[in-house]
Amino acid sequence: MRTHYCGLVDETLIGQTITLAGWTDVARNLGGVCFVDLRDHEGIVQVTVEPGSPGSTNAEVFAVAASLGYEDVLQVEGVVRARQAVNEKIPTGKVEVIATRITVLSKAAPLPFHAHENPGEETRLRYRYLDLRRPEMQRMQRTRIRLVQALRRHLDADGFQDIETPILTKATPEGARDFLVPARMHAGEFYALPQSPQLFKQILMVAGFDRYYQIARCFRDEALRADRQLEFTQLDMEFAFVRERDVQDYVEAMVRAVFREVVDVDLDAQFPRMTWAEAMRRYGSDKPDLRIGLELVDVADLVKDSGFAVFSAAAGDPDGRVAALRIPGGASLSRKQIDEYAAHAAKYGAKGLAYIKIDEAGAVSSPIAKFFDEAAFAALIAHVGAGNGDIVFFGAGGYNKVSDFMGALRLKAGKDFGLVQDGWKPLWVTDFPMFEWDEEAQRYVALHHPFTAPAVDDIADLRANARTAVSRGYDMVLNGNEIGGGSIRIHRPEMQSAVFELLGIGEEEARAKFGFLLDALNYGAPPHGGIAFGIDRIAALMAGTESIRDVIPFPKTTTAQCLMTGAPSPIPDGQLAEVHVQVRAESKS
Amino acid sequence: MRTHYCGLVDETLIGQTITLAGWTDVARNLGGVCFVDLRDHEGIVQVTVEPGSPGSTNAEVFAVAASLGYEDVLQVEGVVRARQAVNEKIPTGKVEVIATRITVLSKAAPLPFHAHENPGEETRLRYRYLDLRRPEMQRMQRTRIRLVQALRRHLDADGFQDIETPILTKATPEGARDFLVPARMHAGEFYALPQSPQLFKQILMVAGFDRYYQIARCFRDEALRADRQLEFTQLDMEFAFVRERDVQDYVEAMVRAVFREVVDVDLDAQFPRMTWAEAMRRYGSDKPDLRIGLELVDVADLVKDSGFAVFSAAAGDPDGRVAALRIPGGASLSRKQIDEYAAHAAKYGAKGLAYIKIDEAGAVSSPIAKFFDEAAFAALIAHVGAGNGDIVFFGAGGYNKVSDFMGALRLKAGKDFGLVQDGWKPLWVTDFPMFEWDEEAQRYVALHHPFTAPAVDDIADLRANARTAVSRGYDMVLNGNEIGGGSIRIHRPEMQSAVFELLGIGEEEARAKFGFLLDALNYGAPPHGGIAFGIDRIAALMAGTESIRDVIPFPKTTTAQCLMTGAPSPIPDGQLAEVHVQVRAESKS
Repeated sequence: MRTHYCGLVDETLIGQTITLAGWTDVARNLGGVCFVDLRDHEGIVQVTVEPGSPGSTNAEVFAVAASLGYEDVLQVEGVVRARQAVNEKIPTGKVEVIATRITVLSKAAPLPFHAHENPGEETRLRYRYLDLRRPEMQRMQRTRIRLVQALRRHLDADGFQDIETPILTKATPEGARDFLVPARMHAGEFYALPQSPQLFKQILMVAGFDRYYQIARCFRDEALRADRQLEFTQLDMEFAFVRERDVQDYVEAMVRAVFREVVDVDLDAQFPRMTWAEAMRRYGSDKPDLRIGLELVDVADLVKDSGFAVFSAAAGDPDGRVAALRIPGGASLSRKQIDEYAAHAAKYGAKGLAYIKIDEAGAVSSPIAKFFDEAAFAALIAHVGAGNGDIVFFGAGGYNKVSDFMGALRLKAGKDFGLVQDGWKPLWVTDFPMFEWDEEAQRYVALHHPFTAPAVDDIADLRANARTAVSRGYDMVLNGNEIGGGSIRIHRPEMQSAVFELLGIGEEEARAKFGFLLDALNYGAPPHGGIAFGIDRIAALMAGTESIRDVIPFPKTTTAQCLMTGAPSPIPDGQLAEVHVQVRAESKS
Repeated sequence: MRTHYCGLVDETLIGQTITLAGWTDVARNLGGVCFVDLRDHEGIVQVTVEPGSPGSTNAEVFAVAASLGYEDVLQVEGVVRARQAVNEKIPTGKVEVIATRITVLSKAAPLPFHAHENPGEETRLRYRYLDLRRPEMQRMQRTRIRLVQALRRHLDADGFQDIETPILTKATPEGARDFLVPARMHAGEFYALPQSPQLFKQILMVAGFDRYYQIARCFRDEALRADRQLEFTQLDMEFAFVRERDVQDYVEAMVRAVFREVVDVDLDAQFPRMTWAEAMRRYGSDKPDLRIGLELVDVADLVKDSGFAVFSAAAGDPDGRVAALRIPGGASLSRKQIDEYAAHAAKYGAKGLAYIKIDEAGAVSSPIAKFFDEAAFAALIAHVGAGNGDIVFFGAGGYNKVSDFMGALRLKAGKDFGLVQDGWKPLWVTDFPMFEWDEEAQRYVALHHPFTAPAVDDIADLRANARTAVSRGYDMVLNGNEIGGGSIRIHRPEMQSAVFELLGIGEEEARAKFGFLLDALNYGAPPHGGIAFGIDRIAALMAGTESIRDVIPFPKTTTAQCLMTGAPSPIPDGQLAEVHVQVRAESKS
């Protein structure tokens, strides 16, 4: 139906008769002459209809051109001609196509919005097919497509095997909620959609596949935050017979290569490495954004004898922390703005936010000054390096909570004060704690997942020192985003059982949920490990957008709906009966 | 953890110290010397432990080797040596590795079955990780992996864009049953898993993507036959601004290239083309297996005046058919075997099966001879070309039903009499009927799907001649399997509405189910078309197996279960309450 793409018509075609097909980006009738910007996925070219001029078109063609509206779909036959008024803004700007025939393939109704408008996300999602026509959306989708293509090319070349794992699988709660699918052939039973292919990829290693990957769809029925979707895509990888560095070195080189290929970015030749403990201490985060130069400073020693009970108590607690964050230029914050920082910290669990403010003239104001003698207060100011024009925030309490909210303040201050450097700051975070103690449930929970190997090989050692045990997990972090997370897995069934036990998963429960894994480990499992990368997030970073919805062709809203198709939707009760379920009476509206 | 792969150790390494890792395929202790066949995904190499011999191993290593059992996982350090007794059966047979160190990484429990056994499919599926270790299974999985890789390589090179479509989407019954997923955030509403990305790929064309593909997971909750799975994988493709031949020519070349690359098979330089009507007439099938030379012969004209009412009625009915199938050598069939043929035909709707049998001596026996005068009977025999030693089966009744069961007999005869040629017989089947009349529902149903364009552009013409209307659908058939099916789609909203109407889908229903498609077509839709290929079936054909389960890493049984994980499984009522459903009282066991 066409001989060339609109966006690729160039001077080499001058004098030739070509056929194009595409959308009417805009059509202008200037009396004696019509100009139609014809658009396809490669770009735009100008189609000119000028009856009467030499070698030009007739009145019939003009009539068609004069009647065109936005987004009408056309087939155009014409002759390529050098353009008098060159348009430098588009690659085809040196030529135009003198139309000899225009066929309207599809007439477009008046549009709900135009390409240059942003009618709000709801309307954009409802008419996703129109939104996706916008060049900016096409660019972002293409970035994602090229990312996945580049990853596959690398992995295929290096002998990784792309293996499919089931979508209809078994419910195995691992933290997040499963999506459930009632089984028709088994009344009262359900499949679950996978939260990740974790267990299947481990099984594949046991089955003798050596290096696995999959661009895998994963499903988590969680509250949707701005950067979460019900279904998301990860590059899932697993390696047999490896240690941490084998996995890390391979994927670090892969990520570096892919950034170069897709967005022409050179990441560090060697990613910095940091333990979880160091990341929490310096940045108050397990995914520190290193583009922000600010660091937390521990001040427990300097405040432990102060009269401020909040500080002295936390300073005296082995699980406590008192940390300071100096913000250069922060003295410009008003009382109201300081309250906003306190409110931000409160979202992450802070009960209050102490500060010391030193104005440009050197005058100090601080609600906590009164708790210190002069020398101790001066020593505190000196220790955190605060000078004229700065503000210093202080957090005190449990170690992880203080780290969390001080880390959140660090990010906010970085943005508010323009302290986020341009560029790309990747790093590895390693040596995660194996377990976190859940105060509410009074038991350990896994920081990564229950299949992550501990650093120690000895089961008795792990049991005796569970609270401080370190895992063989690792995360790749980029500009404050965890873009990849992985670990060396447990490959010995007795260690896996011991970890289940420490997590409060009894023998019977472990058998019921993970019996097949324990069996598999029992029949000759190789040491193995892997990683999973968040494709949506990496694509968003590459495309330069905050929202992963921009790089997902058909995303759902934060209320878990597809505004285009109208999913989810009610289902007739008869159809539900076929799969042996009904809507609960109390849930019917 | 290793320097080389077991299966790749060769003579270039002689004299070098290497480290291997893998599974104990077999370990033999011959008194003074132990031989361990060490296996990884590349193959097997012999590890030799021979204390005392020059440059050889010590007693400690021997003790480890002597204690090894099947499938123990090892790390082996050793020196490569030329082998005295060369093993021609394996690529590494010219060398052996004299072990200097053996570390047992993982001890295997006694296995439920061994690699050389076939313990039955149930056990194989339960211990899928053991079954997948078998070289034959590895080979079949690799064929699939290479198929998908080759397809992607072609499509990426040709500018197709790999675009993801949602798995959690809207229920839109198109024939098969949807899998339903209760929504937590929307009480009483459900997502559905896609039966195919059909509507999304059409939307992508409207959105301005030009050439789309996806290796897409699809879901159909249908009764499982031997060659069906709840979830299956298709290569899904769509092209903007194309006619039938654009799609067909592209994918034919692609399939040819991929068969050459993956299994070194040269398919026909040009696939034969056949209309649906011709395929039904000659082969009684819309996916004829051209490896079988037998053809159906229409005999209505020769039997319309016979005294056999079954024949004469069908012969006189414009929608009827009387067809014959001559089986060379078929006179050898016993009475009992003929009954089996009749039973086979009955499965496809035959009410009886008339025949003429001519023994080697020329004696004719036939239950229908009495209904014919001698000349007519002789003419009938002559027309079907029956000679000594043959049998001819006859079917009479409605056209499609007769075609179906005679086509089924043709396949059975082909197999039973060894008439299936070796090799590959691809073809295109085209010009399908647009609609089938469903007697029971007293309405038309779509033969492909309701988005398939009719051959005529005129809506009035389509309405007036719906019964005989031909669609723009096409199937690619290989050795009797429909491996791909596609069509040019409807791109005009008024034609789509007319087709919905003819299918008995009222305006309101069409709006509720497909409103977004009708909207999209309304805002400037390009002419478009595409195709979808069954990856599981093509991989099975390439791998030379009858069962698609052999080329699916983790398949489900014909009773829709995963025997390894135990899916589906019961779910606590509390968890169901979160998603607002409960198991129906009558379904509880």
